[in-house]
Formats: sequence, C-alpha cells, structure tokens
Amino acid sequence: MTSHTHQTAPTQYVSAKGIQFAYRRFGKAGGVPLVFNIHFTGTMDHWDPLVTDGLAKDREVILFNNAGISSTSGEVPTSIEEMAANAAAFIKALGLSQVDVLGFSMGGLIAQELAITEPTLVRRVVLVGTGPRSGEGMSSLTPEAQQIFGATYKHPDDLWLDVFFTPSEKSQAAGREFLKRFRLRTEGRDPEANEKVAGAQLEALGKWGAPRDQPYEYLKALRQPTLVVNGQTDVIIYSVNSFILQQNIPDAHLILYPDSNHGSLYQYAEMFVQDVSRFLSQAHG
Amino acid sequence: MTSHTHQTAPTQYVSAKGIQFAYRRFGKAGGVPLVFNIHFTGTMDHWDPLVTDGLAKDREVILFNNAGISSTSGEVPTSIEEMAANAAAFIKALGLSQVDVLGFSMGGLIAQELAITEPTLVRRVVLVGTGPRSGEGMSSLTPEAQQIFGATYKHPDDLWLDVFFTPSEKSQAAGREFLKRFRLRTEGRDPEANEKVAGAQLEALGKWGAPRDQPYEYLKALRQPTLVVNGQTDVIIYSVNSFILQQNIPDAHLILYPDSNHGSLYQYAEMFVQDVSRFLSQAHG
Repeated sequence: MTSHTHQTAPTQYVSAKGIQFAYRRFGKAGGVPLVFNIHFTGTMDHWDPLVTDGLAKDREVILFNNAGISSTSGEVPTSIEEMAANAAAFIKALGLSQVDVLGFSMGGLIAQELAITEPTLVRRVVLVGTGPRSGEGMSSLTPEAQQIFGATYKHPDDLWLDVFFTPSEKSQAAGREFLKRFRLRTEGRDPEANEKVAGAQLEALGKWGAPRDQPYEYLKALRQPTLVVNGQTDVIIYSVNSFILQQNIPDAHLILYPDSNHGSLYQYAEMFVQDVSRFLSQAHG
Repeated sequence: MTSHTHQTAPTQYVSAKGIQFAYRRFGKAGGVPLVFNIHFTGTMDHWDPLVTDGLAKDREVILFNNAGISSTSGEVPTSIEEMAANAAAFIKALGLSQVDVLGFSMGGLIAQELAITEPTLVRRVVLVGTGPRSGEGMSSLTPEAQQIFGATYKHPDDLWLDVFFTPSEKSQAAGREFLKRFRLRTEGRDPEANEKVAGAQLEALGKWGAPRDQPYEYLKALRQPTLVVNGQTDVIIYSVNSFILQQNIPDAHLILYPDSNHGSLYQYAEMFVQDVSRFLSQAHG
C-alpha cells in the first residue's frame, strides 16, 4: 500500500515504439485513470501539485513525458498527429484499455487527436487553454506570446507569471502562490527539456494552426463527452478558441473563469479540481 | 417559523411607484436574498421548482412579477431601463439594501441594467440565456424563435419543449420532466400574462437589440462579479451572446452546458443550482 503524491511519486519507465517513456502514477486506483498532456516545452514537473493531487483524491492520475522530452528517450516529432500516436502507444504499453485524457495548451491539441483516433481507449476529455486546428491567432505565436517568450526575466520562473496569469493584482498574487507550489518537489525532478524540443514543437504547432478550409469540421468526430476550460483573457491561445471548440464538439461543456489568462487551471486550482472531478464522475452517456 | 417552498409560498404584495407588486419569498433567511427576473411573458410560475427550491436551501429566494404582468398591477413599460427601474423600486420597497439578482432571457437584460444602475443594491449577478445590447440576432426574434412561437401546439405547454430544449432525445426527455415540475404548483398559481404584455415586451426587446456603435462598451460599467450561463446551442438568444457578455464584463465567469438550448438551467437544474450556489457563496471581491 503506497499513497504517493505529486511530490513523492517515483519516476517509472515503460517502453513502446522503441521509446523509453518516463511517467509517474499516483492517486486512488481502481477506476478510469486520468492521463495528463503538458504544454509546450513542459515536463511532468510543470503541473501544479494542487491540481494533480486534488484530482488524485478520487482517481488515479498519470503524468508522463512524451517522446524526446526530458526523461523520456526518442525524438520530438514535428506533428501533433505523431505526438498523439506516441501518447497512445505509451498508454497501451501500461496495459490500460480505457483512460480519460486532460490536455493543457499544446497538450490539448494532442488530447483532441488522441480522442479522435482512439475512440474506445479515451472515455472523456478535458481541454484546457487550447484551441482547434486553424484557430484564431494560432497560425503562429500570438504577438503577446512572442513578447512574453522573448523577454528576459531576472528569475526565470517569473516567465510563468506572464504566460499563465493576467496583470491584475489578484491574478499575479495567485501566480506567485503557483510558483511556490511549482518548486515544491525537490527530489527526483525531471531534467528540463533540451534545446531541440522547442523547435520541433513549434513546427508541429505551426502545422496545426495553419489556415485551411472548414477547419472545425474534424471536431464532429470528437464524440466523447468533453470539458473545455480556459481563462477569460488567454493571450497565448485566445479564449475565443475555447468557445469555438465547444461550439463544434458535439457533447461539450465550456467553462471560462473570470480575470484569468492561459493558466486558469492554476489560478483557480481548487475550483478547477471540483469542476473536472464532477465532469469525470458523471454517469456515462 | 415557516418553511415554504416554491409550491406553498403564498403570493404577497408590496407597493412602490403606484404599482402593487406580487411576489413570493422563501428559503433560508439571514443572508443576501436572490431576486429572480423571468423571461418574456413569464410569471412567477414559470420558474422550475428544482431551481428555485434548490437555491432556496442556502439562501432566501424572491420571485416577483414586474409591472403589468399577471398578479402585479400597472403597465408593462416599453423599455428595459424602465423595467429595471420598476424592479429596483420593488426591491427597495421590501426594505432590502443588498440583493443578488438572477435574470433569465429578457430577465437577464433587466438584471444587467439593474446591476449597472444600482451598484450598491446589487451584489452579484447571474445572467442565464441572455445577451448584450445589440447582441447577435437580437435586433428581432431569431428565425428559429419566430418559427417556434408561430407554431401551434396540441398541448400549449409543449411550446416550451422547443423553446427551452434541443431536438436530441436526451434534451427532450429532460424537457418532459421539466413540464411536470412546471405544473406541480396547483394552488394559488399566477394568472397568465394578459394579451398586452407581449407587445410591450417585444418593443422593449427591439430597442435593446437594435444595432448601435460600440454596443458592448456599457458592460464595462457592470462591476459586480457575474456568472453567465447558457446552453451550447441556444436558438432563442444565440449562445455567442453569452460569450460576448463574459468577454466584456470585467469580472465574469462563463458556463455553457452541453447539448442544450435556451432552457439549460432547467435541463441541468441540479448542476445549475450547484454552480450558482458556489458562485453566490464565494468570498466577496
């Protein structure tokens, strides 16, 4: 009997498609596990323990690094489709036949693709701070994102105050609390993603965001019950993209939290855990 | 000690501005009461007891008929501004210095106007199935609304199955449950609104919805924490209007429920009660 948490769960490994996938698994076993898909250049350590431990109270949560990232071997592919295929291979290598998936930002693109290509493997979907193919402002980084990622920060972690939170006093205060939680795990942290990761991921994001005809048609094939969540004013992937996702996914529930940016799930961690738990616990169908 | 419910609360009367306002008041006293503003041609009996009684568990709820409607005397004004002024007079006549307001559809227009003109009287705002001034498709009834309100129904109540619910089997089943609840109160029901009501209300709706420059600017003055709720595909007041409201109200939280139309609060009555209760119970500020 172990009762690991975000801070103590050991990094484990499983092989699939010639890739050694690093993952951590903790929480209440016995139900449908929830697999987390992280954002651009993120690792398992980029999740907020208030979110992961909160959700682990009622279900098993699985964090992992996709191919080529941090403690996982292999190369980062240059398309979301290949990233999703790798994620599916990882999940199946764990011997799981049904999971829920949560994707944040770029991880939300992977989660969409996973849900569509693996309709029996994926039961329910949570899409946070993300958008559809050819979404508004998604053909390249938004001007705001270019400015934020191009700036220099005295403390490198402070980058996240601009990426995830609004300039309001309340949001920034929530951001500083998040940064403390973000560094709580001190032992066995993941190495940062190497310098090849960002380039490959940007190429994949560019292909996903490129303009195309009837860009949202593919969402009709996303048949799973889906919860779409974002902040009121996301400057990294504009909030309107969450509305577009919800309007085009057949069975989707939308939540936009007030006065919040790309990291609304960290700003409102407790409310987010409550909303996601309720959604995942609903009777199927 | 009384513990009235939606079914048993007696209709009471209070006078203001020469109008005899009919109202019902029940639930847990002692906190900030929640004042309900009903939709086009609606009376106190048009609320769903699952919603009103659900919210009454933790707070006092106040239903009322605005001027000229059903058991309330006077004339229906031909502007939302005058309707809101009448609602404010009613609330003050009850001796209340602070309330939360919930507005559904046309009631949501009144609630916005109330919040803006009475910033100290109104603490928090819940806007359901509604939209901003000059909202999309709001300069007249939508084509779908014209078709639905123009049709003939064998059982007149069945109109609400089309107004409030989607054509899906699940939504229609929820609709039939709603219609049972809608007729549960058998004693002391309100008389239906008379034949002059619809005309005056339509005139007010037309003025509100008319195109104007920078139509959403006025929402910056709505400073109260606001919860905006709607169905995924509202055909009476298009769902995009809920998104527009949330994007333009400074401190607003948006929820769009899946597979639901104008009456999402009735389709998901229990979830709606949970969401509204949590919102109203949050620490102020």
